[in-house]
Amino acid sequence: MTKKMDQVADSYFNCNDSERAAFELGIKLGALFHQFIGTPVSSENLDILERAIEKTTERQAFVTKAEVKILPKGLENRTESAFFDYTTLSGDMLEVKVYVNFKGVEAVGRMEYISELDYPLMYLESIG
Amino acid sequence: MTKKMDQVADSYFNCNDSERAAFELGIKLGALFHQFIGTPVSSENLDILERAIEKTTERQAFVTKAEVKILPKGLENRTESAFFDYTTLSGDMLEVKVYVNFKGVEAVGRMEYISELDYPLMYLESIG
Amino acid sequence: MTKKMDQVADSYFNCNDSERAAFELGIKLGALFHQFIGTPVSSENLDILERAIEKTTERQAFVTKAEVKILPKGLENRTESAFFDYTTLSGDMLEVKVYVNFKGVEAVGRMEYISELDYPLMYLESIG
Amino acid sequence: MTKKMDQVADSYFNCNDSERAAFELGIKLGALFHQFIGTPVSSENLDILERAIEKTTERQAFVTKAEVKILPKGLENRTESAFFDYTTLSGDMLEVKVYVNFKGVEAVGRMEYISELDYPLMYLESIG
Repeated sequence: MTKKMDQVADSYFNCNDSERAAFELGIKLGALFHQFIGTPVSSENLDILERAIEKTTERQAFVTKAEVKILPKGLENRTESAFFDYTTLSGDMLEVKVYVNFKGVEAVGRMEYISELDYPLMYLESIG
Repeated sequence: MTKKMDQVADSYFNCNDSERAAFELGIKLGALFHQFIGTPVSSENLDILERAIEKTTERQAFVTKAEVKILPKGLENRTESAFFDYTTLSGDMLEVKVYVNFKGVEAVGRMEYISELDYPLMYLESIG
Repeated sequence: MTKKMDQVADSYFNCNDSERAAFELGIKLGALFHQFIGTPVSSENLDILERAIEKTTERQAFVTKAEVKILPKGLENRTESAFFDYTTLSGDMLEVKVYVNFKGVEAVGRMEYISELDYPLMYLESIG
Repeated sequence: MTKKMDQVADSYFNCNDSERAAFELGIKLGALFHQFIGTPVSSENLDILERAIEKTTERQAFVTKAEVKILPKGLENRTESAFFDYTTLSGDMLEVKVYVNFKGVEAVGRMEYISELDYPLMYLESIG
């Protein structure tokens, strides 16, 4: 972003740099989950979908890196039929790590299914 | 959430309460945008879609309130035809305000189209 | 749609009216599923989300009626906590019936979870 | 799909084979549009997103081939800034061709933006 546009966007924020980094990181995790949940997946297209999610995430503002792993839950033993060799991407299949850097503050967030919570938790692993 | 589950989830975070509030707020705005962009809208269903987006946002963790306004951009002059009386929801049609409260820290976020940026900006309006 | 625009759109199709009706119906069911899967739902917002999905579907070309029922699967026993009183909409929670009419040919389609298939099946219930 | 499961699914349908082919094709086009609209795209990730959409479409029932082209509309002149070097995928950027075969009936569908309609039209190009 050009310096001037940067200042225009920043002028809307009322927070410090670490809160901004945390906010930007949250946006990216929420976006990723709700954009791609429901995508048809099979054992044969997990790799390319992982790469596509990484690349589309990495191009967003302040993201320095994105790592995506899709677990083949629900795809085991499904190779024998037209209906059963794919499923739709659900939250418990996703393991994601996103790195954001805002003005030198690095925030690292993850999403993964936590069995104890029975829930795909998005959390802020580190910031500073 | 029960106290125990609360502690389980919190144990994954390494940040202070205001960074957590900012992170949770970002999640909700990113989720809202990417869940509902593309929804078919017409001048006749804007109201119910606004309410549905508000209600589904308000039920998420730490959200205390959500306000959604959908601007009828691209719907003007479209009432005369089957193809032209609806469009799909795009980012520049959404005006959103979400309130999050994490352990007493209130974070207020907005999304709106900023003409100077030609972009639907998500920003942290206030936190504290 | 005005008569003229109608003719423009029709000129792209090479099929008979019942195939067109079946095609338009398929579009609506595929759209509905992939637009709304992943939406956060709780026992308190099922009704308004059902109505919103119906209204946004009914405004699309050639749809005469849409009926949507969301089953509260995964929401039972979740009322006691912030994380557990909602889930995200999945295919097995949806029961949908959509009516399309193209030039007098009515096509009725459904989507519902079929336990024998362990799959949310979209099917053409009747056409004629 | 195993013969038996095939028969279970087929038993829900009341239509001929060409109507079925048209219906299945419509599902795939509606799904593709509403799954991927809103995805963040930049000039650097169009290719991998095109391939991912093709692969996730091709794994669905009865699809024999999918071809996806994403036009870089709205990405021109955006390379100089963090906010401006990406946009979100919209219907007018997509050119799609999907081939379905149901019991020997091949249906070919397309989606592309039609300027005369100012609309991304999904249409049945051929069936037989």
